[in-house]
Amino acid sequence: MSQHVIVRSNRRPDPDAVATLAQVGVATAHEAMGRRGLTHPVLRPIYPGARIAGRAVTVLSQPGDNLMIHACIEQCGPGDVLVVTTTSPSTDGMFGELFATQLVARGVRGLVIDAGVRDVAELTALGFPVWSRAVSAQGTVKASPGSVNVPVVAAGAVVRPGDVVVADDDGVMVVPRERAAEVAGKSLAREANEQSKRAQFQAGAVGLDVYGMRETLTRLGVAYVDEPDDASPVG
Amino acid sequence: MSQHVIVRSNRRPDPDAVATLAQVGVATAHEAMGRRGLTHPVLRPIYPGARIAGRAVTVLSQPGDNLMIHACIEQCGPGDVLVVTTTSPSTDGMFGELFATQLVARGVRGLVIDAGVRDVAELTALGFPVWSRAVSAQGTVKASPGSVNVPVVAAGAVVRPGDVVVADDDGVMVVPRERAAEVAGKSLAREANEQSKRAQFQAGAVGLDVYGMRETLTRLGVAYVDEPDDASPVG
Amino acid sequence: MSQHVIVRSNRRPDPDAVATLAQVGVATAHEAMGRRGLTHPVLRPIYPGARIAGRAVTVLSQPGDNLMIHACIEQCGPGDVLVVTTTSPSTDGMFGELFATQLVARGVRGLVIDAGVRDVAELTALGFPVWSRAVSAQGTVKASPGSVNVPVVAAGAVVRPGDVVVADDDGVMVVPRERAAEVAGKSLAREANEQSKRAQFQAGAVGLDVYGMRETLTRLGVAYVDEPDDASPVG
Amino acid sequence: MSQHVIVRSNRRPDPDAVATLAQVGVATAHEAMGRRGLTHPVLRPIYPGARIAGRAVTVLSQPGDNLMIHACIEQCGPGDVLVVTTTSPSTDGMFGELFATQLVARGVRGLVIDAGVRDVAELTALGFPVWSRAVSAQGTVKASPGSVNVPVVAAGAVVRPGDVVVADDDGVMVVPRERAAEVAGKSLAREANEQSKRAQFQAGAVGLDVYGMRETLTRLGVAYVDEPDDASPVG
Amino acid sequence: MSQHVIVRSNRRPDPDAVATLAQVGVATAHEAMGRRGLTHPVLRPIYPGARIAGRAVTVLSQPGDNLMIHACIEQCGPGDVLVVTTTSPSTDGMFGELFATQLVARGVRGLVIDAGVRDVAELTALGFPVWSRAVSAQGTVKASPGSVNVPVVAAGAVVRPGDVVVADDDGVMVVPRERAAEVAGKSLAREANEQSKRAQFQAGAVGLDVYGMRETLTRLGVAYVDEPDDASPVG
Amino acid sequence: MSQHVIVRSNRRPDPDAVATLAQVGVATAHEAMGRRGLTHPVLRPIYPGARIAGRAVTVLSQPGDNLMIHACIEQCGPGDVLVVTTTSPSTDGMFGELFATQLVARGVRGLVIDAGVRDVAELTALGFPVWSRAVSAQGTVKASPGSVNVPVVAAGAVVRPGDVVVADDDGVMVVPRERAAEVAGKSLAREANEQSKRAQFQAGAVGLDVYGMRETLTRLGVAYVDEPDDASPVG
Repeated sequence: MSQHVIVRSNRRPDPDAVATLAQVGVATAHEAMGRRGLTHPVLRPIYPGARIAGRAVTVLSQPGDNLMIHACIEQCGPGDVLVVTTTSPSTDGMFGELFATQLVARGVRGLVIDAGVRDVAELTALGFPVWSRAVSAQGTVKASPGSVNVPVVAAGAVVRPGDVVVADDDGVMVVPRERAAEVAGKSLAREANEQSKRAQFQAGAVGLDVYGMRETLTRLGVAYVDEPDDASPVG
Repeated sequence: MSQHVIVRSNRRPDPDAVATLAQVGVATAHEAMGRRGLTHPVLRPIYPGARIAGRAVTVLSQPGDNLMIHACIEQCGPGDVLVVTTTSPSTDGMFGELFATQLVARGVRGLVIDAGVRDVAELTALGFPVWSRAVSAQGTVKASPGSVNVPVVAAGAVVRPGDVVVADDDGVMVVPRERAAEVAGKSLAREANEQSKRAQFQAGAVGLDVYGMRETLTRLGVAYVDEPDDASPVG
Repeated sequence: MSQHVIVRSNRRPDPDAVATLAQVGVATAHEAMGRRGLTHPVLRPIYPGARIAGRAVTVLSQPGDNLMIHACIEQCGPGDVLVVTTTSPSTDGMFGELFATQLVARGVRGLVIDAGVRDVAELTALGFPVWSRAVSAQGTVKASPGSVNVPVVAAGAVVRPGDVVVADDDGVMVVPRERAAEVAGKSLAREANEQSKRAQFQAGAVGLDVYGMRETLTRLGVAYVDEPDDASPVG
Repeated sequence: MSQHVIVRSNRRPDPDAVATLAQVGVATAHEAMGRRGLTHPVLRPIYPGARIAGRAVTVLSQPGDNLMIHACIEQCGPGDVLVVTTTSPSTDGMFGELFATQLVARGVRGLVIDAGVRDVAELTALGFPVWSRAVSAQGTVKASPGSVNVPVVAAGAVVRPGDVVVADDDGVMVVPRERAAEVAGKSLAREANEQSKRAQFQAGAVGLDVYGMRETLTRLGVAYVDEPDDASPVG
Repeated sequence: MSQHVIVRSNRRPDPDAVATLAQVGVATAHEAMGRRGLTHPVLRPIYPGARIAGRAVTVLSQPGDNLMIHACIEQCGPGDVLVVTTTSPSTDGMFGELFATQLVARGVRGLVIDAGVRDVAELTALGFPVWSRAVSAQGTVKASPGSVNVPVVAAGAVVRPGDVVVADDDGVMVVPRERAAEVAGKSLAREANEQSKRAQFQAGAVGLDVYGMRETLTRLGVAYVDEPDDASPVG
Repeated sequence: MSQHVIVRSNRRPDPDAVATLAQVGVATAHEAMGRRGLTHPVLRPIYPGARIAGRAVTVLSQPGDNLMIHACIEQCGPGDVLVVTTTSPSTDGMFGELFATQLVARGVRGLVIDAGVRDVAELTALGFPVWSRAVSAQGTVKASPGSVNVPVVAAGAVVRPGDVVVADDDGVMVVPRERAAEVAGKSLAREANEQSKRAQFQAGAVGLDVYGMRETLTRLGVAYVDEPDDASPVG
């Protein structure tokens, strides 16, 4: 088999699960999945307020080269999220407005890139959300082979084609396709539970009581005291 | 004495001083205090435009564990600023919207956290300002003891319970409670002086004249020259 | 010659070229110049949406000291961009609102600083754009000599007085004065070309066809395959 | 299935391949595998001169907690390399001399840890090599569940139990078990080829001739010139 | 009181406690103190193998200025450790061989500096150990006031004059003077306990049994399984 | 003129000046040149103890591509130092033992590379010193054009072909060819002066007296005090 491949993948996560994950967002889905799947917080959105979920279409590129992003475009369709990684660390601006124009035309929901992005003013105007490691105008070549739709590691998280990528102002996470429905269900249950807590908290309750943690403090030996001397050592 | 304590503190800075510090902001207060008290610039606001000051209520937690934030909530009241630190470096999202809901209900003005925060879209919608080292959805456990209202080091600055925390788009600083009135007073004097300078600058004056620094340049041996050869070495 | 100099420079880039570069922005100008001239992406704007170009007026300062920024103000005029560097790494807030007031009065378009900036709320309100390495309230002294209008290195890019600085949401770049007209011309040609491509992409075309890169993929040995086994090794 | 598992694994790479990989080292094996499998260069050895290869035994821990390293020890045997990762970023010193003592008694060859290590003087005296993200004395608790011998991501590289970890002064890489023999074979071929090149280079030949790249330079439009004017723009 | 002071301090930690802390090192003392007092791991030794403890003599300097290190020298004596900090982040090489010569003549044991150091080859030859944030030849001025023997924050840890600084290959920690004897005593107890464990581990025992943690794993729901399918999701 | 050039340069610094600079090292030469010319401290030696100076031969490469290092080899000769930079940030291991073999055969003294290096065990055995931003086994391609012997920026410092590069355990600096003799002369004067100071310091004198800075402290308002209350605010 060739080392460099473009995989035509038909693996798709459950669309209802994807819709739910887009609604609940990263923090809730991450808790619902057992606190797994998060990328490193170095991936940040280029503008605030976006919240998306979609099928991962993956790219593995040589750093400083965006040929394989070109190769990937026609593998993307409505509801997908493009995930771009490089074979070694890079902040170059591999992606810009002309790529986004192609993806918007195909119904793609956004980009997660473990490298740099440029044309961020234009991408913001287009309403095309991007989560990236850097913003950089550094241009790239189109000369090196790579792969499309192979499993990749993006900012520390494994992404397989067909997995669900969830992204919002809190960051980016990956839900394995096989667990999408389960995680979506647990997310909704979690939200319902949080809603009841929220009402209690708005009325003045505190978590120590709502979650019953006063005994935990006692068991752990945490003592209540009053006003010690100011000169006590820090920490 | 137990190693882990929750201190019920009644130390409060002068409320008029706090109000003044909230009005003048970090840069002015920092100058008025002799250029001390600033945290490292790694602490950044989750949204622009907030400017607060308030009594510090402090937390020292195990990284990846937010039990002690729960324990701290009922120690907070109107006008306070919660300050959260960890015993070793962490970017985990220890604080989110349900905590903010409890704090808003108690009149707390904001959070300074030398770790991560999540639910930033929801916190922004709530208008609850946060200054943090990172944004991360990474969830945490509620299992380890720690302390509340002990002196801590937040991003390089010592914070004692009852000190004044000032925070705005320029960062976060700490004014020792004992110096709050002095620093507030000097801040107002500084602002008055700056206002007169501002008018001169708007009219076209330059600092070299307004501050009388032309002689300084001469004394330091800085020479005025015209158009040297382009090939002169850099710097 | 004195080691520390303030150079009165009359070198000015072509104003039409500057206007064009301000219109096309950093990513386009950087490509038009052969992918050179960019500063390191650590320089970021304090607020989104600004796009400027102008003549570079340069400062080389001791870190933690802004005397030479004062010395530089009267060397600046309409259409200029101030570029501030330090002799060793620093994040101190060397520049704030009173400096901006002086520069606005002189028609200066913005600041690029390889150090820190403060008063960012006030600078945003003034509409005075800044690209900096850090936001920090840390105040500085006015005690050490330095130079004005000598060649400097800002975040890895050489800037000579009279060069064109272009800055927008994508970062900061430097166009040597001698190449300003050439780069502006090539930028416009590039934009025209991109416009025709954009229309094709909006209609659904992909870059593989528009740029004729399908043969490149074949030549590089990239193979198309279907649905491999999930357990294939990552990357 | 439980979320947290300790997997008893019998997957073992080919021992001859492992021996070969330990002899050729990371740079050669990485080239032989098509320039894949490397961890991020943030993983560094605690002392120079070690070069090892061995079967990966993996740990996924809560940050700041080394319970699962304890749980992993008896899963390790002669020729293994322990690989420790955490569910979120941490530099805590999760591993020290008492762990190394246990592993040395079991014939384990070394440790790769995407977190911190301590007792480095003692580990150096023991001759137990470690590659880590940080050196830190920060102690940890033994309180949280995790997993042993599940696939993990260590500094950006996927490691499955039974894969081959290769580590030396150049860093750390992972060879999938299925490819170990192939990569070992290609590594030896590469070394043989390099040996013949080395002799030519020692005799004064240059790569441009030995690899036949002069035409490449011409084709790429690289021109030979003499002594241009010193004032030419940088880069 | 003047803002800038040189404090003549006679506070000295218990010499026997200091000797014990120098013998046990940072990792043990840090555990014995309840896992507190560590500086951030960014402070690293300039050469391996040193292990010291001594009375802290502290300096707070303007960044890029070593006047106050000069002012501090005569406040140092036999058995002391100099601790240098700056009022804002800096990597400048504030300390070099001529300073070390003065300190060696006075019997000072080493330097901890939250900034840069230079002349590291000469310092290594002298056998004068240094823990620093950076190695940098960047020279500094001698122009700005600061303080000697005031409490400071060094890489996140509070250091008061008279506290004990302990430093070795694992990093740097601070033991408050009042706790020196207690921490030294607990350190020795800890070492004795570790010695008995070490013998068991050398004989093949594992921590799960020695520390009795098998039930912990069961209670936490960690399950033992055999050879799951390779395609199971990571982590 | 072609954008990518290989310049055959005959510019050579004064050999006696180079010999002197190699003897005095970076810290002294940097002071003698007025505290200029240093690269960022991120460039570190791969092994301790080397101290070199030599004529700079420069390379500007595409990141992840070492074709132009090949092109540069035959431009290097006895006494040269190779300086490699990339057009955007990269840590890839562009240089290894086979390159060093070629350079050793030509009498080249060492390498400064603002990127990664590999084969560090072999380079250490060869005694070929390297200062780099990273150690990484990441292999590179040989496909992209670049330039040889053009002015470059290496870790923030401008290097022109023919300048003197000085490197030792303290880092790397650049002396413009035109100033080599002057800086060498001032370095020797500085060393002579330091030698007399060193003798005084070994005899117990302190810099406050030797440099006459006691009045400076008084003028700056630094006050001597005794034993203030421990509870005084930090810093």
